Amino acid sequence: MLEYTTTEEVMFFDTDCGGVVHNLAYLRMIETCRTKLAEKMGMNLQSMSKTQQFPVLVSTEIQYKKPAVLGDKIKTIGKLTQIKGAKFWCSFEMVDEQTQTLLITCTQSLALVQMPKGKPLRLPAHLRELVTNKT
Amino acid sequence: MLEYTTTEEVMFFDTDCGGVVHNLAYLRMIETCRTKLAEKMGMNLQSMSKTQQFPVLVSTEIQYKKPAVLGDKIKTIGKLTQIKGAKFWCSFEMVDEQTQTLLITCTQSLALVQMPKGKPLRLPAHLRELVTNKT
Amino acid sequence: MLEYTTTEEVMFFDTDCGGVVHNLAYLRMIETCRTKLAEKMGMNLQSMSKTQQFPVLVSTEIQYKKPAVLGDKIKTIGKLTQIKGAKFWCSFEMVDEQTQTLLITCTQSLALVQMPKGKPLRLPAHLRELVTNKT
Amino acid sequence: MLEYTTTEEVMFFDTDCGGVVHNLAYLRMIETCRTKLAEKMGMNLQSMSKTQQFPVLVSTEIQYKKPAVLGDKIKTIGKLTQIKGAKFWCSFEMVDEQTQTLLITCTQSLALVQMPKGKPLRLPAHLRELVTNKT
Repeated sequence: MLEYTTTEEVMFFDTDCGGVVHNLAYLRMIETCRTKLAEKMGMNLQSMSKTQQFPVLVSTEIQYKKPAVLGDKIKTIGKLTQIKGAKFWCSFEMVDEQTQTLLITCTQSLALVQMPKGKPLRLPAHLRELVTNKT
Repeated sequence: MLEYTTTEEVMFFDTDCGGVVHNLAYLRMIETCRTKLAEKMGMNLQSMSKTQQFPVLVSTEIQYKKPAVLGDKIKTIGKLTQIKGAKFWCSFEMVDEQTQTLLITCTQSLALVQMPKGKPLRLPAHLRELVTNKT
Repeated sequence: MLEYTTTEEVMFFDTDCGGVVHNLAYLRMIETCRTKLAEKMGMNLQSMSKTQQFPVLVSTEIQYKKPAVLGDKIKTIGKLTQIKGAKFWCSFEMVDEQTQTLLITCTQSLALVQMPKGKPLRLPAHLRELVTNKT
Repeated sequence: MLEYTTTEEVMFFDTDCGGVVHNLAYLRMIETCRTKLAEKMGMNLQSMSKTQQFPVLVSTEIQYKKPAVLGDKIKTIGKLTQIKGAKFWCSFEMVDEQTQTLLITCTQSLALVQMPKGKPLRLPAHLRELVTNKT
């Protein structure tokens, strides 16, 4: 099973004048977690720029359950849930580190592509062993 | 029927080193369109700060269909699709203004709440007349 | 004289929990104005991706004078103030469109470079005619 | 002497289509460092929302010396350099953790204010002992 957990403290730039964390900030935190998760799948950030092989986002579904505020520490837990051809799926939960309140649930699908053409690249077979929900 | 269209030119801050528009930038553009749409529903931005009544995002579903690049003009078309109690639903399509290529499809659900408590506020009945898909 | 004016309405993503516009949001608005100004100098956004010739930021000085809030319309006035070799300087003023209050003053220096090496490229001589302060 | 060091890995959202880190991303990283530095000065993030006493940015001067790229680890070293009345000054250096290349130099001035009025609040006298350059 492939998992990665990141923790971020809510900064001013994460919040808006409603007094809570802005919806885009959660997705930025999810991207950091997802990028580290993809690194564990063999997609190294520093080699990407050279090979121009990037994991690109195909879809996002996100539910905003409870709001976080300035100074909260948010834990993002990401899991690889499925792999098929060039595509893979991840799921995320974000919780308040102190209270363990569930803030966000999210699933994203991605494809490994060769840029700049955007040609899909089949993911290595051995990664299928790492998915949470084998199908 | 309630609709709003915004057009934005892709700037450097919208792109990433993959050479295309970053996934968060589309959602920022959608937020601008959605906020103007909410204004047409009677949620005025300048009075919000005083009343502390805000439309908050409950969920987002977004599909990244084709990538845009630096200098492209992206048209975002937003529609109010459903209203129920304190909640309302919007759908968005983003197209390349020049080629009419469909880039993004997205649906979002929101709730009108009284901050800082987050208490849901029933939407005015007359708005139901404006939804695209009456149920 | 080369000038460009942009106007943006303050959105939620521009604000923070202090209730005012976040410092990074002003710089994003300045970038939009600066990019349109550079376009008038002959640096076309859509050709940049192909030629890989980009105006890169060398320095920024910004003074935050008065805060703007949600729903305010902010006018950004940018001017080309100096050109020397591969470098050029711009100055910006941001004002509240309704009250004409001065919010921000800013100066930025940039260089035209050939990426990915970052080699400086001399700016066309005819542009010197357009600067505000000829030296 | 009051110092704080943060380290961040360059993510996709930090970069632009020029292939390097975008100018706004450095300032976001500086804000995280500065906020932690202010916390050491007694400005606690979680109490701020309640007291509505915020350190607000008055000015920024930033020099972009060398670009960082995707996957680089950037170390931001912040120092408190001066205090006077309600104002304080910080300086920042950003270096590539691996090569120790100097990427960014920056100085910022701030004021502690009571929101929403923006009334300046005198900083505690004992903080003067912590400044790097006593004047």
